[in-house]
Amino acid sequence: MKTIIKSGKVISMQVGKEIIKEEDIVFEDDKIIYIGSNYEGKVDKEIDAKNKIVIPGLINCHTHLGMSIFRATNDNYSLDKWLNEFIWPIENNMTDEDIYYTTLLSCVEMIKTGTTCFNDMYFNPRGSFRAFDKSKIRGVYGRCLMGDLDKDGIDRINEFKALYEENDNKLIKMAVAPHALYTTTKSYLEECNKLSLNYDLPIHIHLSEDTREVENVTKKFGKLPMEVLKEVGFLDRKLILAHGTYISDEELDLIKDKDVSICTNPISNLNLGCGIAPITKYLKRNINVCLGTDGVGSGNNMNLFYHMSMLDNLQKGINEDSTIMNSYEVLKIATINGAKALGMENEIGSLEVGKKADIVIVDLDDITMYPTVNPIVQLTHNGWYNSVDTTIINGEVLLENKKLTLDINLEELKKKITEIRGRLL
Amino acid sequence: MKTIIKSGKVISMQVGKEIIKEEDIVFEDDKIIYIGSNYEGKVDKEIDAKNKIVIPGLINCHTHLGMSIFRATNDNYSLDKWLNEFIWPIENNMTDEDIYYTTLLSCVEMIKTGTTCFNDMYFNPRGSFRAFDKSKIRGVYGRCLMGDLDKDGIDRINEFKALYEENDNKLIKMAVAPHALYTTTKSYLEECNKLSLNYDLPIHIHLSEDTREVENVTKKFGKLPMEVLKEVGFLDRKLILAHGTYISDEELDLIKDKDVSICTNPISNLNLGCGIAPITKYLKRNINVCLGTDGVGSGNNMNLFYHMSMLDNLQKGINEDSTIMNSYEVLKIATINGAKALGMENEIGSLEVGKKADIVIVDLDDITMYPTVNPIVQLTHNGWYNSVDTTIINGEVLLENKKLTLDINLEELKKKITEIRGRLL
Repeated sequence: MKTIIKSGKVISMQVGKEIIKEEDIVFEDDKIIYIGSNYEGKVDKEIDAKNKIVIPGLINCHTHLGMSIFRATNDNYSLDKWLNEFIWPIENNMTDEDIYYTTLLSCVEMIKTGTTCFNDMYFNPRGSFRAFDKSKIRGVYGRCLMGDLDKDGIDRINEFKALYEENDNKLIKMAVAPHALYTTTKSYLEECNKLSLNYDLPIHIHLSEDTREVENVTKKFGKLPMEVLKEVGFLDRKLILAHGTYISDEELDLIKDKDVSICTNPISNLNLGCGIAPITKYLKRNINVCLGTDGVGSGNNMNLFYHMSMLDNLQKGINEDSTIMNSYEVLKIATINGAKALGMENEIGSLEVGKKADIVIVDLDDITMYPTVNPIVQLTHNGWYNSVDTTIINGEVLLENKKLTLDINLEELKKKITEIRGRLL
Repeated sequence: MKTIIKSGKVISMQVGKEIIKEEDIVFEDDKIIYIGSNYEGKVDKEIDAKNKIVIPGLINCHTHLGMSIFRATNDNYSLDKWLNEFIWPIENNMTDEDIYYTTLLSCVEMIKTGTTCFNDMYFNPRGSFRAFDKSKIRGVYGRCLMGDLDKDGIDRINEFKALYEENDNKLIKMAVAPHALYTTTKSYLEECNKLSLNYDLPIHIHLSEDTREVENVTKKFGKLPMEVLKEVGFLDRKLILAHGTYISDEELDLIKDKDVSICTNPISNLNLGCGIAPITKYLKRNINVCLGTDGVGSGNNMNLFYHMSMLDNLQKGINEDSTIMNSYEVLKIATINGAKALGMENEIGSLEVGKKADIVIVDLDDITMYPTVNPIVQLTHNGWYNSVDTTIINGEVLLENKKLTLDINLEELKKKITEIRGRLL
């Protein structure tokens, strides 16, 4: 099956290439086989992208997809109180079936808003995997590991191992995902490090989300958070640090030249009163920064365009310098940097021949977004108004003309979600 | 003509009333005549709002509506450079006809996103007024006054006076709108104050948008910005300060118990590298805070829901306290506080019998926003996704089922805007 995307304004994110260029893209099965003008071969399907913008699928590097029923529930909670008094007691009552539906909702939201790959951390994985199969989305999944090397902690690790053996979804890779330093012990983290080594998988962990966490962790371990990670071996692995809102210069020195990415979640960090991460400082140190929504309880939604807009706005605002960040940098963070963080930069994150066909077509033609003077700025800041027209993952067109082509009954999904909300919240 | 809005979840913003309540609203011609259940009278039209949220129309207290062609052009400019090197030279070439179309575009955007009243400051007013007539929107207009008491400055004042006499649009009130302290002189400001007194109109001025402005103004006048306003008489008038990003405690003392509102423009302030206004501090001092988008050049869009979300997020983030602000407070800022700022709190800003029928119906039922656990939080943070279903201004339904009912050809408007952009940018 060969498909051509005709005459789109392509923002390929390929290094060294013109930033935006009108071109055709041809993909066959799961791979991009041609980018250029005047393709001469025969194709089975043509998608007209004239006057539309074509970008690599967005990559959401920190999510809790099963949390969709908690959307916008954090209005008046501190992070600590929200987790302990609201989220965790309810999550304890969620079944695999519940998590299938809540995760499926998040997958639909991602596909409708141009995200083609995620990095999820959650529990009750069987529900999540059913949703991944159903929605045909690409992603990385880490069974949330927490506690100590007691029965509960070991059970979680065993669940991770079983899942690894069982996983037959070719679009889903795995990560080792210890929850955070404040919910695990040193010996448990060392065990997680072994898992990462033995299975050759990246590690995904929450780190230094707010100043309270930094204080508590430093007190608990008698060391700075990054020093703990170093001691247990994480800094010599491929590592994704979710949040990293507060990382001292001393700690930043420790990750120089390491394969460590910081996944910033600007909306969640604001909403939970955590603060604003100094992203431009991280970028200046050549740290690979990627972008996440976090769960929609604190992140409001899975629409990465909204989060991109905020990332750009915030860095300009806190630095009192509107030239310190720009839309192209932000789009990099949400695409190729995400791919690098997940070790998938040879497969996704940019539109290049040989890469997977994870492609998003955006229409910025709504009268309320008129005119488009600078497409990249317009995309980054106003791409969120129902503007994603087409979403292609691994060569499959999952959204076309803003309509889902997947075999998912949205009205039934709404009913299920309403039932789950009624029962749990 | 009598219309009933049936069974909506009404967030009336009326003091002392239940925050959200399922009720009917009946309006006759331009006025709300009934709010409650089981209305027995006959009506000419019924709008079904079951499962939808009904709110007072949003009020955008600081805009430059004619700037729509500059949408998202500020990616890499400082405020100063952007104005001097980009915006102002282009604006000099804009005709009345250009400003008619660019303002009309902004009016359409407001109506489609639930804003029913604006506070605009711009030049070439005849173009703007043609757009106001055409779009049937409510607003306050201030001809931008700048310079000195020389020919140019006096010409601007004369244009204001002529406009005041000519204005026969009952939905448009006027304000006296000196641009800013850095673009006027003391004697010019005193003249503006006289205009405000003689015509009994509010004053609308940019103030302390960034630290550079504060420094420059303090140097220019040998006084703090607020002291200058006091000296020329503005603090004894009804006054709307656009931005107020940096106001010292000493200056805040000067406006205690005065009829002074601060209109914050959070997105614009971030984008132009101006900073983040300490809104919770202003609220604690009982200052009336209202919300603006600024022009879309820096504000990205006129969709106040996006700006509301950011206002809430930012205050929680910079204070590192997620309980310091909440969605209801933000909705107040975008409705009743705006009405107070404009001296229209007896007419608009809340849904009450006797007030004008400026009503917005919002549908939060898109699958990507499911579920709605807390409607006010969901509205404030996710209301920007094409969710406004109906917009009613002064009893006229201007948007219904997400479609404009106005006699405006949107495709033609797009063509005009494209032509203007091509010619000017």
